[in-house]
Parts: sequence; structure tokens; C-alpha cells
Amino acid sequence: MAVRFSSALENIKGSDLGPLLKLTAQPEVISFAGGLPAPQTFPVQELLKIQEEVLREDGTGALQYGPSRGYQTLRELIAARMNKLLGTKETAEDILVTAGSQQALDILGRVFLDPGDVVVVESPSYLGAVNAFELQQPRFIEVETDEQGMVPEELERVLASEPRVKMVYVIPEFQNPTGITWTAERRQAFMDIITRYEVPVIEDNPYGELRYEGETLPSLKSMDTKDLVVYLGTFSKTFCPGMRIGWVAAADPIMAKVDLVKQGTDLATSSISQREIAAYMQGYDFDAHVRENVELYRDRRDVMLNAMREYFPAGIQWTEPQGGLFIWVTLPEHIDARELFKLCIERKVAFVPGEAFFPSSKKKNHCRLNYSSMDPERIVEGIRRMSEALKEMI
Amino acid sequence: MAVRFSSALENIKGSDLGPLLKLTAQPEVISFAGGLPAPQTFPVQELLKIQEEVLREDGTGALQYGPSRGYQTLRELIAARMNKLLGTKETAEDILVTAGSQQALDILGRVFLDPGDVVVVESPSYLGAVNAFELQQPRFIEVETDEQGMVPEELERVLASEPRVKMVYVIPEFQNPTGITWTAERRQAFMDIITRYEVPVIEDNPYGELRYEGETLPSLKSMDTKDLVVYLGTFSKTFCPGMRIGWVAAADPIMAKVDLVKQGTDLATSSISQREIAAYMQGYDFDAHVRENVELYRDRRDVMLNAMREYFPAGIQWTEPQGGLFIWVTLPEHIDARELFKLCIERKVAFVPGEAFFPSSKKKNHCRLNYSSMDPERIVEGIRRMSEALKEMI
Repeated sequence: MAVRFSSALENIKGSDLGPLLKLTAQPEVISFAGGLPAPQTFPVQELLKIQEEVLREDGTGALQYGPSRGYQTLRELIAARMNKLLGTKETAEDILVTAGSQQALDILGRVFLDPGDVVVVESPSYLGAVNAFELQQPRFIEVETDEQGMVPEELERVLASEPRVKMVYVIPEFQNPTGITWTAERRQAFMDIITRYEVPVIEDNPYGELRYEGETLPSLKSMDTKDLVVYLGTFSKTFCPGMRIGWVAAADPIMAKVDLVKQGTDLATSSISQREIAAYMQGYDFDAHVRENVELYRDRRDVMLNAMREYFPAGIQWTEPQGGLFIWVTLPEHIDARELFKLCIERKVAFVPGEAFFPSSKKKNHCRLNYSSMDPERIVEGIRRMSEALKEMI
Repeated sequence: MAVRFSSALENIKGSDLGPLLKLTAQPEVISFAGGLPAPQTFPVQELLKIQEEVLREDGTGALQYGPSRGYQTLRELIAARMNKLLGTKETAEDILVTAGSQQALDILGRVFLDPGDVVVVESPSYLGAVNAFELQQPRFIEVETDEQGMVPEELERVLASEPRVKMVYVIPEFQNPTGITWTAERRQAFMDIITRYEVPVIEDNPYGELRYEGETLPSLKSMDTKDLVVYLGTFSKTFCPGMRIGWVAAADPIMAKVDLVKQGTDLATSSISQREIAAYMQGYDFDAHVRENVELYRDRRDVMLNAMREYFPAGIQWTEPQGGLFIWVTLPEHIDARELFKLCIERKVAFVPGEAFFPSSKKKNHCRLNYSSMDPERIVEGIRRMSEALKEMI
């Protein structure tokens, strides 16, 4: 008989980025490749107190199995925070706690997609979402996305012509990989089309709280009149990623399906970590904590942008994000970012070549740069080294 | 367009057990329905020290993203413990840490199964595994299983006649739901057939360390000469379930596929919980802790078996497990355990009707009883009430 895998696993070979990115883990490499939050933002001192409190006051609850939808108190806190920041009207019943947003992406792929179904994404889109959805063997259609967001006419053209579209996946705030934020007009135009075609939308918002300037814009979820928007949030970028806590906000019937998959997938999310985050939100000033992160990351973004302006040769373009963790670089069209990567890694500096963020078009002349995880001196030095490699290639 | 779900999610309606089992959550109900470990076994005092140590000594590692295969120290400790207890020859490279065994079941379903593929299971089998695999829309074939384990001739008959068998799922130690342990002879006969047919086996062993009497028997994994056995372990029954930490032990090429799905599913398991369990295994006597759990559960098993002998009417049969958490009751064939459940819940006592553990044959005359989570007085009183309901039905 011999071992035979599922067709998805026979087909998916795993990214060939893996071996490249392994090189970036060497400590002497200045890496703009990851998307790691800065460890100094982790609230270690507060957690020392909270962990003890949670175990002393509710040790049995913290260590026992919990409900698949999540710890009730945390669900209430999440709903309240969403309503305060995003103009939504969620209740705890609309919230299901997941092992980071990544699990939510995976669950939603399973809720909506059969092999050959279409997922509509921004062009480019988030690699981790593409990887999660790919396990369901869908077809990806990239919709043209400019500096204002997804182009509505292009979206409508796809929805009108592709009957197998099952969901649209977008990151309207400080997108990964581009750092682009959709304008209010684009959001409205997008939701008008979505409402007309009645297609489910995944609004992934891991970076929304990390806004360094400008006004917060209405979330797609707040503009949703037909329960089509499934909102994904996470504590990975505002608290810490190591606990793996995120959430889905959705209404029935979608939520009932999400819950069913969640039960099959891992029964429930960590009882203890959910209680610790709830205790933090109740006992400390979460907004003030986020503001500190914002200060730190704004500074790093500015350092990187200034260094790029100073060192990068002519002919290179990049985004200037108002928040989030990433800058997106566009190279002259004839340059393959993988070739640039090789020159960079010789100089001990790394980034993610953009190709993997284009699930169908596979454009080669882009780089994603992360500025959150390196300190300012290393950022300047890394950009200087990168610019040497760029000059060598051009 | 309207919202359309994947075919798996259109087909799976969720167990109709749900509403029944909700009734069991009322505090006045004596519930033999769950599979919860006793909270007094949770090492709260030790964890109070460990949590602080982990955060103080490795706060950044504990709160940052970690590798998809898991925390290296924990993987080494798991491999060493498996080799000590199970006669295996694992290294850290063979171990991937999951969010409980449930996630491992889910990942393996995705690694092996396309819709219509066959999963071979014991008859009956574990409901949670059936639920996880069902998301891949397989066909389940139950193989006759008696008090010695899966019947080899029946297994061979299935493998010889069913070309779409992709994996065999078994729990050879203190099975859920029956409590049955396979004999050494049956294990050997099973592995002889498996080796001949070269079909992957999932050996799920959540209860193996909870042996109340008799000798530990060789694991299937230790008898595997062709890298066909994927072993699943968990800390949920020996440490605590609230952290959601389990593991897969497998060799390539299966492990490479498991890793790929793990990355798409949730990137990695909780960095902080993995470090805490590793610190416990290094700083405390895990064997002594397990022995305490064994004492407690052996006593509860004996209390339940004695009460059943005293109160249950003639015509009822049950297993006498050497370990684990469950006793399996066989009612006269004409009795539907769901009807019995209704009479029992009126008397404020609950169990799981057996039907859900038979994914294809749906036999109705069985009950699963859990003895780990109720104290001895409640066990006796619960069995007394159940016997009243039984007498009313017979």
C-alpha cells in the first residue's frame, strides 16, 4: 500500500523561502525579514504579578479544559475593546478565541473553501494567510491594489465573472506586506460591492492599533449590514505573540461553523493564557501600553525611512506606512529580489523577497522590510549595507 | 452570491450530543460524562515557582514567537521520556509539539485524508478523533475489537479489500471509550499486518502513564520497523489540560508534512507553556507526580466498579480497565442509551451515550462512564441513581 498523503499535502511543497530565511537567523545578520514585535514591549513585570494572581485565585479554571468559544471574561473584554476602537457592536457571543490570528485564518479556510474555490486577495497579500488557505487547495485571484487600497472596479469585475468566489481576504490597516492603509472612500466602495454580491469577507487586522499618525478609519466590520464580515484580531502585536492568543468576531451562521472547526482542531484555546490576558486588560492600562509600543515603532519606522532616503540609489520606490510593521520596496522591474537577497546575505543583512506575497502573479521585483525588531543603529547599518548591494545590482 | 460553506461544513451538522451534554454542566449534576482530570492533581504550587522562574530567566523567549516544531528543550525531554517509558528510540528531531493531542489528530487528518479515503478505527473509537478526521470527509471502517484489542483477522480483511485505506487510528492503552488495553500478542499481530501492508498508523496514547496495575506493554511505536507509526502524546492527563500541550512523534517524510500543516495552522505552540512544562520536568519528579495521580484515579476506579457491582441490576456488563479514565457499559441490546440518559438526567446523573463512538455502526446500547473527575462519595451516589434509572428501563 505504502504511505500516501492527501492531495493537498502531495501538492504543497513548502516555500523555498525556508532555506533562504534560515540564513537570517544567524545572530550577526541584521534581519528585516521577520515580523517579530520588539521584546522590550513585552509586559514582563506586569505578567509576573498577573500569573501569580491567576493561579492563586482561579488555578482550577486556568489549568482545566475550557469552552471552545473561549474564556467568557476575555470574550467580553474583546467585544468591548472592539466597540470602543472600531465602531462595531459586538457582544461576547460574537467572539471566539483562537491560537493567534493564524488559527483563525486556517479555520476560515476550512469553513469556506473546497478545492478549486476562489479566494480573492489584495495584490500582494499576506503570505501566512496564503499558506493557511492553500491547505484547502483553492485558486487565488489577486485584485489590483494601489496606495489607496483594493481597486473597487477590479474587485467588481472579478466578483461578476467568477462564480466560485467563496471569500475575499483583506488587511485594510497597515497591510502586510505593503504597509498600505485603505482610504475611507475605498472602504465604502468595497463594502458597497460586497453587500451587493453577498460574499464573505475576512478583515484581518493584526496591526490596527499600531497607528503612528493620522486618524483611525472605520473598520469594514462596522460598515457591515449583512453579517458578511469576519473580523480577525490578535494580541500578538500589542501584548505578546508567545501565548498565541487571537480572536474571530463573526455572527451566525458563520460563527457556528467556526466553532465546529475549532472543536475538531484543538478543543479550545489555552485557559491559562486567556485568563492572564483578561487580567491584564482589567488591571492595567492597555491603551497606555499600546501607546508605548507605538512610540517605539514610530521611531524605528522613521529611522528606516530616513536611512532609505539617505542611502538608497535612484530608481527604488517604497511605501511610507502610517502604522504597522512593514515597508514595501519596489525595485526596477528587471531586478529579481532573490538575487538581491543573495548579495545582501553576503553582507549580513536580510529581508523577505516579495514573490511569495503574490500567490498567482509571482512578481519578483519587491522586498518586504520589517522595522519593529531591530534597534535604530542596526536599522541604519542594515539599510546602508542593503544600498551597497542595490548599487551593485543596478 | 450568498454565503456558501465548504462541502465538509455543509455536511457536518455537529453532534446532537451537544444539547444533551450541556445539561451535564449544571453543578448539581453528578457527571460521569466528561473526561476531565481531577483538579487536585494540577501542580499549582510548583507552577507558581516555575512561572516566575521562566519569565525572569527567559522572558523574551517565553513571550516571543517560537519554532513550528516546538521548544528544543521540551522536545529533548519528551524524546527522553518516551524512550524511558515506551522502549522507543526517539530524538528531539522526531518530536513536534502541538496544542494538545487534539491538534495532532486534526493535523494528521489533513496530512493523509482526501474526501472518500478510508480511516480504519477500533469499534468503538474516540469521538474527538472521529470529529477531527470528519472535517476531511473520509469514510470510517470500524474493525471488530474485543477485550484483547483489535481483531487482527478483521483488520487484515479490511486492508486486503479496501484500496482507499490511508491510515489506521488506534488507542492500545486504556482506550477511550472502552478502557480496554491490547495484549502483547495482539500488538505484535497488528504490527505484523501493518508492516506487510505498509499503512500509516496513529497510535494515540493519552492515558498510557495512568496504569493502576499490571505491567506496561511495548508500544506500537517501539515495534515499528518501517516508520509507519505516528505516536501522539499529551500532558493533559498527567500535568494539566488548560495549557493545551501535546506532541507528535514521527519520522520523515510524515514529520515534514506534519510540520507544514502546523505552520499553516497556528505557526507554533505557546512558547511560555512549553517552557513551563520543560522547567517542571527538569526541576521536579514527574514520575512521582504521575504516581500520585495514579493513586487517586485507581481509588476512584475501584469505588465506581464496586458501586456498579453493588447497585447495577443483572444483565448489564462493563469493562474493568487497568488504567485510564473510562469504564464502558454494555446494556441489553434493546436498550437505547439515550433513553437511559433522559431518565438519568432527571435524577441529576449523566454519562455519554455510546452511539457517537461508533462512526459507522452507531450501536446504541452502550454508555461511557468517567471516574476521574468526581470524588468517591459522588461516584457512589451517581451509580446508585443510575441503577435506579436502569431498573426502571429493564
